[in-house]
Parts: sequence; structure tokens; C-alpha cells
Amino acid sequence: MLKEIAGGITAPKGFKAAGVKAGIKRSGKEDVAIIFSEVPAAVGAVFTQNAMAAAPVVVSRRAAAKGSVRAVVVNSGCANACTGDQGLADAQTMAHIAASLLGVEDHEVIVSSTGIIGQYLPMGKIAAGIENAVAKLSVEGYEDAVLAIMTTDTFSKTCTYEFTLGGKTVRIAGIAKGAGMIHPNMATMLAYVTTDAAINPAVLQSAMQKAGDLSFNMITVDGDTSTNDMAVALANGLAGNDIIDSDRHPDYQQFFAALKQVCIFLAKKVVEDGEGATKLLEIQVQNAETWEDAKTAAMAVAKSPLVKTAFFGEDPNWGRILCAVGYSGAKVMPEKISLAIGGVQIVKDGMGCDYPVDLLKKVMADREITVSVDLATGNAEAVVWTCDLSYEYVKINGEYHT
Amino acid sequence: MLKEIAGGITAPKGFKAAGVKAGIKRSGKEDVAIIFSEVPAAVGAVFTQNAMAAAPVVVSRRAAAKGSVRAVVVNSGCANACTGDQGLADAQTMAHIAASLLGVEDHEVIVSSTGIIGQYLPMGKIAAGIENAVAKLSVEGYEDAVLAIMTTDTFSKTCTYEFTLGGKTVRIAGIAKGAGMIHPNMATMLAYVTTDAAINPAVLQSAMQKAGDLSFNMITVDGDTSTNDMAVALANGLAGNDIIDSDRHPDYQQFFAALKQVCIFLAKKVVEDGEGATKLLEIQVQNAETWEDAKTAAMAVAKSPLVKTAFFGEDPNWGRILCAVGYSGAKVMPEKISLAIGGVQIVKDGMGCDYPVDLLKKVMADREITVSVDLATGNAEAVVWTCDLSYEYVKINGEYHT
Repeated sequence: MLKEIAGGITAPKGFKAAGVKAGIKRSGKEDVAIIFSEVPAAVGAVFTQNAMAAAPVVVSRRAAAKGSVRAVVVNSGCANACTGDQGLADAQTMAHIAASLLGVEDHEVIVSSTGIIGQYLPMGKIAAGIENAVAKLSVEGYEDAVLAIMTTDTFSKTCTYEFTLGGKTVRIAGIAKGAGMIHPNMATMLAYVTTDAAINPAVLQSAMQKAGDLSFNMITVDGDTSTNDMAVALANGLAGNDIIDSDRHPDYQQFFAALKQVCIFLAKKVVEDGEGATKLLEIQVQNAETWEDAKTAAMAVAKSPLVKTAFFGEDPNWGRILCAVGYSGAKVMPEKISLAIGGVQIVKDGMGCDYPVDLLKKVMADREITVSVDLATGNAEAVVWTCDLSYEYVKINGEYHT
Repeated sequence: MLKEIAGGITAPKGFKAAGVKAGIKRSGKEDVAIIFSEVPAAVGAVFTQNAMAAAPVVVSRRAAAKGSVRAVVVNSGCANACTGDQGLADAQTMAHIAASLLGVEDHEVIVSSTGIIGQYLPMGKIAAGIENAVAKLSVEGYEDAVLAIMTTDTFSKTCTYEFTLGGKTVRIAGIAKGAGMIHPNMATMLAYVTTDAAINPAVLQSAMQKAGDLSFNMITVDGDTSTNDMAVALANGLAGNDIIDSDRHPDYQQFFAALKQVCIFLAKKVVEDGEGATKLLEIQVQNAETWEDAKTAAMAVAKSPLVKTAFFGEDPNWGRILCAVGYSGAKVMPEKISLAIGGVQIVKDGMGCDYPVDLLKKVMADREITVSVDLATGNAEAVVWTCDLSYEYVKINGEYHT
């Protein structure tokens, strides 16, 4: 049983955080964040699959591979992407500065950047910002840390839960930034999860990959995958639970459920705050032959500009949804497919059916809408979240001039 | 040497056409077209890969497989898609009515439909329309035929060329309809090519597939593949050239070049008339390891809403282009990639470089813009055409209510 509590990413024992203004963002707002664990924490992390992965992704991948970290340092305002050897050296230096001040090893620091592509990090500001942030590390600092990772997010994304594992109270919390555009380039999704649960690094890594596959990898705003995305979980063990050393450990499933809940909560918030979004759409594909089929079909629906503009216009355009399922590549038997929007069935056996028009109109006016596609080819299912495509999206992404 | 001439799809010898108003379109405009060859014509055809392929696609696939056809009958205003067994029977009846009136076999008639999804064909109107169109078949009828296949296209798409094969004058022509939205569903791309060249059906089929892969399969407006797409070439042999019976025939390459030219011309016109398009973008990916890699990378750039909105905003946002190449799945070496827009180099070896700002600003204001990505991993190349993403796209697709 997960209980929602206050406190943010420093609610789990042994975590401190800080967010400071280092002058990297043009707006002058908070732009350097540090999350620190007083004791070594097991790490599980997932990174962008983009071949143009930014320098901080390269550095953090190596750090995460060692299994144990002490700190995460993040800057917003500059992505340090497409910056070549200099960018890589800068990301390493960023980790080194934080490590020295915190008295830990360079490889115990995860670094993230989000912001302008193709520009070098302003290392003087970064160094001063890190120094300032380290000095301010505290349990209360979590609120500033959330602000410092935001770019054009319109609201902060955070959640905190408490649960018990073998009689011990465990806390888990997460923050994320999402799909607001950054001058002049692309959105970056960053997420950080802290917990005082005791878990083996390899098990945490595998749990984080699975949780990521069901959350951060199941959302799409516009189908563009950033060069800087990462989602990182730190587990420092201070809750004192019996260490989860395998996915067959009796507490594993409960821990995984909590981690998944945090990741899905954050992922949905990212979509809800998608560029120009007016609606949050949950695309469920049921009774597919395989999970991959279900995901492929759901993702095609979620990415289709025709579907997304139809929802913006509150038009229950089922032809566009079936069309997207049809070209997705998933195994489909046209004469078996059914479709419901907000629980109202509108397609049965591949053909439109009579439905209560007024009820559906009400459903389409909701801010959160569920689309359920039943493929009737097996019993696998997948859920993807997306948002609609509005004038505001075109405005945010088209009107900005570099 | 291809020479552009007047005359449309009836310019090649032995072809007649007609377009009539059958009352299927709400607008009352032309909505039934017939293209007829006085003698059996070899056929080469490519169809949508959408698993939800509409009834006319199913019927036409079978007809095309026989290698020889006499006529094409098309209706706009109703797609006959997601219509089950009834839809299939209707499409067969549509072919049968045309065949009877023209004195040919049912399987010698290709049928196409475009328009509303999920509604049955109004068979009374279809029958009357076909009868009227057959009565009006003429060389002059090509202009009405073009109108009858259009939906919300803002201009008609047609081209006609003359060339010689082994001393004989050969003509080839084509028409297409494109990516204008149809109430209440999706765009459909239809294209028909006529030629009086003599060519074996199997060779024409393979030539059409190759030409389609370099034209109709290299365009994207919004990444949505319709349930009704088809591109069909008819070659009736009346030019009297030595029959092209293999792709090693001395005239094959010249014929293929003409066919490819027609297909690329039509494909580009479809994109130019894409929903809400203000710009035609040619995405070239050069020096890729394989053609598939080049196409994959080019398609990712062409489909990216972030890239498309940037071009709408006339913003030379190279980070978005590199990002799309990076997540495309194509083999990319980040430190080797280069990029030019309209011939102005702005990325070299994976990093931004100094460029003439005023010149690039001019380029970005053009209606047609070329984006060249050099992967430097091999020597394959591919070209994809797309359009920008504008407010008007959202308006066309979001404001329409069913």
C-alpha cells in the first residue's frame, strides 16, 4: 500500500538537495541542482537511445555502470549536446567539481544538462553554481532543486510515497522535467527518483529499466527523442529493510510497484505539460498477440498528428485511429478490431457502430480521455500516454526564432 | 530526353477519360472518373501497406495481379473503408458495372475510392455515375477526370511527357490526388500513369515498384498512411516500340527514367499541396552506409513535428534536424555528420559552424528548401520530400467536426 506524503526527493532518509541561480538561464531563474545521498546509493538508470547522445549522457552512462553513486548534478539552460570533445571534457569537469566539493569520487556523480544544443557549457558559471549549491544542500532544498531542472515546464512535477517492506518504513520520491521547448532546440525529459530502500544495484537497474519501459518509454508528445534524456533512481538503503538482492526476493514486487508508480506518475505529468497540450490521452491496446504489438499499435495512434489534431478539435474521428493501428506494423485482423473512447464503444468488428452521440460528445470534452483498442488477436496489452496537437504547439515550436 | 507536352493522361495513344458529377461529394463537384484503354494494357501497381486496406484496394490488388487491364474507375466522396463484407461486394459491383458497360472482363478494371471512412458506397449514384462517365469517354475528358479524383486538393496534379524509344515516339502522363483532408477521415494518395509504351506486365510491375519507392514512398505530410492509397501505371503498347520484355532490354532504362520522372513530379505536387503547407522541403541524406539508412534518416527528419514547425517559422534549427537523424535508427557517427540548408553549410563534423546569417535567412524564406545531411559513413543516398507544419494544418484537421 503506497501512501502519498509530503516532502519531495529529500523525504527518503539521507538525501539532501539544493537548487541555485547560476546565471545560465536567460530568465535568471534557478538553473543548477544537486541531489546528494549521505551514503553510497545503488543506482539504476535509463538513457536516451538517440545516437547523437549529449556529453552528459556519455559521462553518466559510465558512472551508472559502476552501480553506486553519491550525487546527481544538473544544469538547465545549456544541453552540452553536439559539442564534440570539448563538451565531453566539460561534462567530466562538471562531475569532478561536484565530486571534489562533496568529498566523493568523480565516478560517483551523475551529470545532466538540458537547454540549448550546440553551445558549450559556461564553465565559470557552472563551477560557481555547483559550489553555491553544495553549500546550500539541505532537506528543505528539494523545492529549489525541482525549479532548477525545469525549463519551459509550466508546473513542477514531483511525487512522494511511503510504504513498508518487511515491517520497515520505506520512502520513495521523484521529480521530472518535461517537454517544454528550449531555445533553440528540443525538449529533454529528465527524471530522478530517490528512495531509502535497500536494493542491490543490478536489481535496481533491471527494475528501473522495466519501470522505464512502462512509463517514460510509453509517452510521446511529438515523437522526437531528445539527445539528453535520462531517468535515474538512487536507493541508499537507510530504511534498513532486508536488502532486495534479486527479483525473486519476497519484497521485490512491492518495491517494483512503488518504483513503477513513481515513474508512471512523472511520465503522465510530462505529457500533461506537453507543448501546447490541452488534453491528456491514454491509449490502451488490449488483446494483442504480443506486448510489442500492443505497444507498436498504441504508439502509432499516440504519434499520429491526425489523431492528435482530432482530439484537439474534440472530434471522435475513429477512422484516423483505425488507420494508425493499420499502418503501425502490429498484427491486425481488420474484421476483429473494436474501439471505445471513454468507455463508449464506437467500432465493433472493424466497422462503426451506433453509439450515444451526446455521451461521446461529453467524453470528448474531458481533459483526460481514454482510447481503448481491442485487437482480439491474443491477450497482451500496453498503455501509452500522449497529448493533443494544438495551435499552441505550432506557436511554441514555429514562432520562436533563434 | 523527356519533352513536356500538353494533353494529360489521354495524350498517349488509345486512352480516353471522363469525369462526371454523380452526387457523391457533398460539394456537388465531379466525383466519378474513368480512364479507358482501347486495347489491353500492361499494368504495374503499388498499394497501401496499411493492414486496414480498404475494399477497393483488395479488389484492385487481385485485378493488377493478372497483369493486364482495360480501365480504371474511381470515385471520390466515399472511401469504402472499414465496411466489411458489404464494402467488398460493393467494390466488386463497381468493377462489374464498369466492365459490363465497357465490354471488358471484371478483372480488367481497377477500382479506387477516396473520401469518408466507415460509410457504404451509395451504389445507385455510383452506377449512374459510371454509366454517365462511360458515355462521355473521350480524349478531351482528361480534364474532368482529374477533377473527379480530387478531394480537398487545392490544385490539380498532372504532367505529360514525350520521348523516343528505338525511333518510336512514346508518351507518358500521370495524374494524382493528394493529402487534402476528407471529411471525416484521412487523406488518400491516388496516382494513375498512362503510357503507350510497349512493355511486359512483369517488367512494368517491377519498374512501378522501383519508381514508387523513389517517389510516392519518399513523401510524407504527417506520417499517416491511408487505407486507400494506390498508384497504377497502364501501358498499352500503341506507340509500337520494340516491347520491353526485361530490365536488361536496351530501352528499359530510358522508359524507367520517364516513369520515375512522372512519379516524382506527382509525388512532389502532393507534398506541395499538403494540408496547410507553406513550404516544400527536400531532405537529402548523402554518404550513408546503405540506402535504407539514408531513407530512414531522411524520413525521420521529414516526419519530425519539431523540424516541420521550425521551417514553418523559418528558423534554421539544426539541433532538431541532428536530433531526428540521431533517433532515426540509421547508423550515425555523431562526430562525422554535416548539414547544409539551401547549400549553406551550418554543421560540420557534428558541431555547428559559422555561416552567413543573412544568406541563410534568405534561404529559409524560400518556398522550396533543400536540407542536405552528410552522414560520411558510406556512399548511399536518398531523397525524401515533405512540407512544413503550420497553424493551417491544425485548423484543417482539428477544427473539422464530424
